[in-house]
Amino acid sequence: MGKVLLDMAMSLDGFVAGPAGEPEGALHEWWFSGASDGPTGEVIEESLSTTGAFLMGRRTYDAGDNADGFVDNLFRVPHFVLTHRAPERAAKGDTEFIFVTDGVESALEQATAAAADRKVVVSGGADTAQQFIRAGLLDEVQLHVVPILLGAGIRLFDGLDAVRTRWEGTGVTASAGVTHLRFRVPG
Amino acid sequence: MGKVLLDMAMSLDGFVAGPAGEPEGALHEWWFSGASDGPTGEVIEESLSTTGAFLMGRRTYDAGDNADGFVDNLFRVPHFVLTHRAPERAAKGDTEFIFVTDGVESALEQATAAAADRKVVVSGGADTAQQFIRAGLLDEVQLHVVPILLGAGIRLFDGLDAVRTRWEGTGVTASAGVTHLRFRVPG
Repeated sequence: MGKVLLDMAMSLDGFVAGPAGEPEGALHEWWFSGASDGPTGEVIEESLSTTGAFLMGRRTYDAGDNADGFVDNLFRVPHFVLTHRAPERAAKGDTEFIFVTDGVESALEQATAAAADRKVVVSGGADTAQQFIRAGLLDEVQLHVVPILLGAGIRLFDGLDAVRTRWEGTGVTASAGVTHLRFRVPG
Repeated sequence: MGKVLLDMAMSLDGFVAGPAGEPEGALHEWWFSGASDGPTGEVIEESLSTTGAFLMGRRTYDAGDNADGFVDNLFRVPHFVLTHRAPERAAKGDTEFIFVTDGVESALEQATAAAADRKVVVSGGADTAQQFIRAGLLDEVQLHVVPILLGAGIRLFDGLDAVRTRWEGTGVTASAGVTHLRFRVPG
């Protein structure tokens, strides 16, 4: 069985999206800037070769759908979307979306089965990430820290007052515009 | 003339102190744990050899004074403390404290003169750091990111809504329990 990896891009001041949940392009330039060489290219290659399924919240899906972000993306793996109600039309493109309306455990169970020996990658948004942290469902975390101060937005780490925990740093990869930090979450 | 460096330890979820401003020991273990070998030892050595003066807020001084944190510390350089009113008794120990009551620019001017060709190191707390960020007074930033989630406390990057800026990553050093991130702040 694979592992559950939280994988998100974050500004240095802790934000993963704009104030209304809108995507912050500056956080994802490193992915789209064709950094196929060098350290960031290796991080991207590893994501592509180890991801078995994605799991995300509805707002993240909507943002990607609206922006055509998921259309023809490089990951040919199922995308599980946590939602209260499935949308009437599916996203365009070849990506397979499965809408899960009966909660995070069910979504994780389905994604784990689909991912087989690869990883289930939790890719946002902050609410979904926080649910996984609070429930102790993560095995690993990868944060792509972009050295910008956004000053406002939605924080990845918020509403975790009851959580006090130490992760284990397992690796750092640095490129010009992004630092990739990896952690193991003790069981 | 030296440079102005913001140098602070931060949890992965962005906190630099407890909810009431109290020191969080877990953020500073790497400094006191005798990590004189290895990458973190090199970071500490560089701090010791390049720091010409410290500049801090009053609460950071009080926390260190109360905890005897500044007594006989390894830095034999002047410590400038921003405050509205100088304390009646000075801290114990050999460290030289200068209390500055006429504002951040005055404190920086005095610290810069004292530091000569070494760096003025702004070492907290969050309020003081934010003043320097908002006023554009920093040349460099070093964050010692400890992979813990504190869940609550005082955030380093807060109240910066009017700031949207990109720093330049200039280096990363990783040890088992801390990752040292360095940035240049564009002028």
